[in-house]
Amino acid sequence: MNEPLERLVNAFRSLPGVGLKTAQRYAYFIIKSSKGDATDFANSVLLAKEQIKYCKECGNYTDKTICPICQNRNKKTICVVAEPKDVVVMEKVKNYNGVYHILNGTLSPLENRGPNDIRIKELLDRINRYQTTEVIMATNPDVEGDATAMYIAKLLKPLGIKVTRIAQGISMGTDLEFADEITLSKALEGRREI
Amino acid sequence: MNEPLERLVNAFRSLPGVGLKTAQRYAYFIIKSSKGDATDFANSVLLAKEQIKYCKECGNYTDKTICPICQNRNKKTICVVAEPKDVVVMEKVKNYNGVYHILNGTLSPLENRGPNDIRIKELLDRINRYQTTEVIMATNPDVEGDATAMYIAKLLKPLGIKVTRIAQGISMGTDLEFADEITLSKALEGRREI
Repeated sequence: MNEPLERLVNAFRSLPGVGLKTAQRYAYFIIKSSKGDATDFANSVLLAKEQIKYCKECGNYTDKTICPICQNRNKKTICVVAEPKDVVVMEKVKNYNGVYHILNGTLSPLENRGPNDIRIKELLDRINRYQTTEVIMATNPDVEGDATAMYIAKLLKPLGIKVTRIAQGISMGTDLEFADEITLSKALEGRREI
Repeated sequence: MNEPLERLVNAFRSLPGVGLKTAQRYAYFIIKSSKGDATDFANSVLLAKEQIKYCKECGNYTDKTICPICQNRNKKTICVVAEPKDVVVMEKVKNYNGVYHILNGTLSPLENRGPNDIRIKELLDRINRYQTTEVIMATNPDVEGDATAMYIAKLLKPLGIKVTRIAQGISMGTDLEFADEITLSKALEGRREI
């Protein structure tokens, strides 16, 4: 293989989950595309890296100082997530009108991440400033996500703030027989009168 | 989502086989990577598009006028393939010392590609110039690949050139019971004394 092609293949291989064959496929696609398209592609990488920074409020990616969500929405409710990508997922729920707070990770003794390594101090500061009344913990339903939610709940409850956790249970459309025990037990625990 | 991020996600979505989730994953990876890495990535795209052209001989991608394979190897044997990416695959066979010829497609009545739309004239020209003695047809073992191989074989045989086709049969490690009928019939057809 020649040098610029090899370099391009290696660039694509650095992307998460991309192996040699996929990288070659992407590279050949770029080479076959028009000069304008390839330039646009490269520019969108440069532009994103240049212009995207962290929102000073919630910590999400934005090209402004304060992201549009923090600028325009109700700060009485803060939904706490681990990563910026979780905001994209949560935003699919159209009727949430509060803001977000990105922790940039979860508490993890194994990976040596303690309370000072994630954005908890910033969360407390925002709650104070905006007199937030409810904090929704939307970290992942796994050991680290649950531990992080519990830790923050313990911190906030003495301040008289309502802390909630997104519900865990059977996913829509899942057959009962395929649900795992932990999910089933969570679903039972969280049962409601109908 | 903000504008530069959206643009980057859309750029990645234009790659073959990449959906929204994968594109987002790639985009977040770029944003999280260092400025130098992102710039390298963008530059490798620009550089490849700028420097890679077609080898004047075989039609493969190269950053030279004549690719290293055409420059250095025996031109008495030409292995004919449909696409540049097939050369990468064939080159895994370490003991092939001939050159390649990229057709840039196969004959396809359905897609309106006739003999003048693929690089057959260039192949004849090279065979003439280098007094090639064997042409190995390594187009894909499908209807179009087979038809293209047959067409070229018919063209070359009157010139006294040996035309061969890569063998079709059971793949290494495949259980007989999972082989399809056509493959089995090809395997039987191509049987050899042992």
